[in-house]
Amino acid sequence: MVVGCLIEHDNSILLCKRKIQPSYGLWTLPAGYMEIGESATEGAIRETWEEAGAKVEIISPFAQLDIPLIGQTYIIFLAKLMTPHFSPGPESSECRLFALDDIPYESLSFSSMLVTLKLYIEDIKVGKPKFHYGIINKRPGTSPSDIHAYTLDYHLRS
Amino acid sequence: MVVGCLIEHDNSILLCKRKIQPSYGLWTLPAGYMEIGESATEGAIRETWEEAGAKVEIISPFAQLDIPLIGQTYIIFLAKLMTPHFSPGPESSECRLFALDDIPYESLSFSSMLVTLKLYIEDIKVGKPKFHYGIINKRPGTSPSDIHAYTLDYHLRS
Repeated sequence: MVVGCLIEHDNSILLCKRKIQPSYGLWTLPAGYMEIGESATEGAIRETWEEAGAKVEIISPFAQLDIPLIGQTYIIFLAKLMTPHFSPGPESSECRLFALDDIPYESLSFSSMLVTLKLYIEDIKVGKPKFHYGIINKRPGTSPSDIHAYTLDYHLRS
Repeated sequence: MVVGCLIEHDNSILLCKRKIQPSYGLWTLPAGYMEIGESATEGAIRETWEEAGAKVEIISPFAQLDIPLIGQTYIIFLAKLMTPHFSPGPESSECRLFALDDIPYESLSFSSMLVTLKLYIEDIKVGKPKFHYGIINKRPGTSPSDIHAYTLDYHLRS
């Protein structure tokens, strides 16, 4: 289970540039593996502190995205900065707030991040974020590094 | 990760009486461990077929309940019967539709089931079910079999 935060701040969101493989040099939401003995919210807060040096408060659950092919489930929460400070941790080379129109869709790290950000932007355009469930299936015969080669199946909102 | 279904049918919900330990003889939503290579919805549909002999369609995500003490996360979906048929599988002695006023709160199998059903009933009373996130913490010094001895922490709605 991978847990992470979509951090809203002044109509922008916080992304980290990865300083580790896979997807070195590409942008991601702060997220990582949930550890034994912690809850999903604790894990998302911890990962955000480790990768972005940011203290956050969770606002609401935003998405569960299953990737059965690789046995992963992403759990993403909406969050806000408790103080307007952040700085890259050891796994990030840079952390930056992106205005919603400036999200670097061509330089994102994983399909899960692309799906999360697209769902968020769609929600924001029509009002308030909802909770989303979906299954990310890679299109057969495409490269793992082509993050645009997926279908979002079984998409449900709550 | 434990996945399961809260099945709505004619203002009733479907429960199964457990024919296995733990909590033998107590009532549960159809639910069980997600398997490698399946999504949460696939797992919830499979468990419902195995435990209740019921074919269901998923309506929406309903709850994520973390239990850090035992390293479990429950993912519960609202679902409906595709045909009005069900019959106990090998792990159940009985399956029954309960009207919302007749839910056997004193004979439920796990705190997770109690929390799920209480949140559902609260939602139904005021309108439409929402999505819930929460952490179930056992009250220190209480018996594991006392399903009422918990606190629901970090409860968020979406």
